[in-house]
Amino acid sequence: MKQLNTVAIVGVGFIGGSIGMAVRKRGLAERVIGIGHRQESLRTARRVGAVNNTTVDLAKGVAEADLVIVCTSVGRVVDDVRRVAENCPPDTLITDSGSTKSTIVETFNYDTDNPTPEAKLPRGCRFLGSHPLAGGEKIGPAHASADLFEGRVTVVTPTKNTLAEDFDLLETFWTALGSMVVKMSAADHDKAVAMTSHLPHAVAAVLACSVPEEFFRLISTGFLDTTRIAAGGPEIWKHIFDLNRDNILAALSHFGRNLASLETAIRNGDEAMIERILTLAKNNRDALGS
Amino acid sequence: MKQLNTVAIVGVGFIGGSIGMAVRKRGLAERVIGIGHRQESLRTARRVGAVNNTTVDLAKGVAEADLVIVCTSVGRVVDDVRRVAENCPPDTLITDSGSTKSTIVETFNYDTDNPTPEAKLPRGCRFLGSHPLAGGEKIGPAHASADLFEGRVTVVTPTKNTLAEDFDLLETFWTALGSMVVKMSAADHDKAVAMTSHLPHAVAAVLACSVPEEFFRLISTGFLDTTRIAAGGPEIWKHIFDLNRDNILAALSHFGRNLASLETAIRNGDEAMIERILTLAKNNRDALGS
Repeated sequence: MKQLNTVAIVGVGFIGGSIGMAVRKRGLAERVIGIGHRQESLRTARRVGAVNNTTVDLAKGVAEADLVIVCTSVGRVVDDVRRVAENCPPDTLITDSGSTKSTIVETFNYDTDNPTPEAKLPRGCRFLGSHPLAGGEKIGPAHASADLFEGRVTVVTPTKNTLAEDFDLLETFWTALGSMVVKMSAADHDKAVAMTSHLPHAVAAVLACSVPEEFFRLISTGFLDTTRIAAGGPEIWKHIFDLNRDNILAALSHFGRNLASLETAIRNGDEAMIERILTLAKNNRDALGS
Repeated sequence: MKQLNTVAIVGVGFIGGSIGMAVRKRGLAERVIGIGHRQESLRTARRVGAVNNTTVDLAKGVAEADLVIVCTSVGRVVDDVRRVAENCPPDTLITDSGSTKSTIVETFNYDTDNPTPEAKLPRGCRFLGSHPLAGGEKIGPAHASADLFEGRVTVVTPTKNTLAEDFDLLETFWTALGSMVVKMSAADHDKAVAMTSHLPHAVAAVLACSVPEEFFRLISTGFLDTTRIAAGGPEIWKHIFDLNRDNILAALSHFGRNLASLETAIRNGDEAMIERILTLAKNNRDALGS
């Protein structure tokens, strides 16, 4: 892609930091500016080479940006995008890395033919959502990696009001970071990740809660794998559970019905049914690779 | 430990093969004999160095054994232990690696003061159960590893009829393979692993079944970790679900109640409760390490 002059990243944690490192490693921008609240975190971001400069002043940080990526926690993305749009150059494209998308799209009213004036971003700025499917349970720029997006999917969620050139820019950008870009509506994205990401988190968390401490010494790799994501930050996940509530409840209810089927089969000693469930599970899991 | 002359391993799959490799690497026995049904698997066991000799003839394989380890699938352990006892030298100690223990102990009636004559093994042979907590989803001697037990827990399940010298031998043996030995009753063991191993397997399998194929492309590391053990063999797990039924049903019901609490909290937007659950989960998971 044509080299950008300035990329601004709002929120230089694990994802924001990894984006900065990846942009710098691949020479996609002349400079990367990291914007955050906490000096310590910004210092770490500079130290690991995620950004060239940092600032706690959002207005100053985005003043010359060609592209702004909001990587704060999903509950804050809407407010942060607005603040960015009020302070960045006119006609700038703003994206994010949030793991739920519908709320943001609905707020900016992008999928209607006549967005209300309040819904539009000021001065010609546009928002187009992204979600790089990478991260897991890690927190903070100290764990950031320039290769985090290599071979991973990034979903971009255009609406009927998205400019083709904006989609092209983001597609080129994420592809340059090593991602495979998948185009989906925000609604379809949220329904899918409720199943593939939010349901597993809920299940892993409940599993981690369910085992009494006296049994900890018997815990082996299987339990550790199955609950690994439960180490993720409660703050982040509280927001996700709030923002994608209906899809997550639907996923939980679907999971609950399947779990009840297995429970009934175990209770009745129905070996054929147990084997059918375990075989489907194995086939699905084998198909997904390691 | 004093070097053994001959260790016989019945069932040279992933666990049996790893025991053989570990015994040989550490020079714990002069020779390791692998006993199995399938020539191909026995050839692999020889090729990877898990055993010195192999045979499909159980009687011949155990004829000179100082210690026999039955590593066939849990559903077959009881029968195999009996066959071993009928063919090995008098007064031989037999152990296993099965992931459920109560059925075996009950069959051999070891925990009563007056075991019935049928329950006793012939010719002074004794059974003492072991369960090395290692393995995961791998199958077959090709994946076996001499260091599989390094740093892992092995549960040994004595009863009131267990000879102190038998417990000492197994404790020394598993410790020599790098394991930490934990002494538990078969009943306590089965209750604990229902929570720490069998419940996670059920949950991972149901999760792997619940995601429709159209969403596979959005699957990321979190889902892969959470469902990794669902790739385990349906045959093995069908037996485990059968042999440890009551404990697994209790664990599923405990998990189901906790999942319902989270579901209710999400439905009601009860952020305090969601945060309490996620924080407990994170604290537990952090305590368990990686």
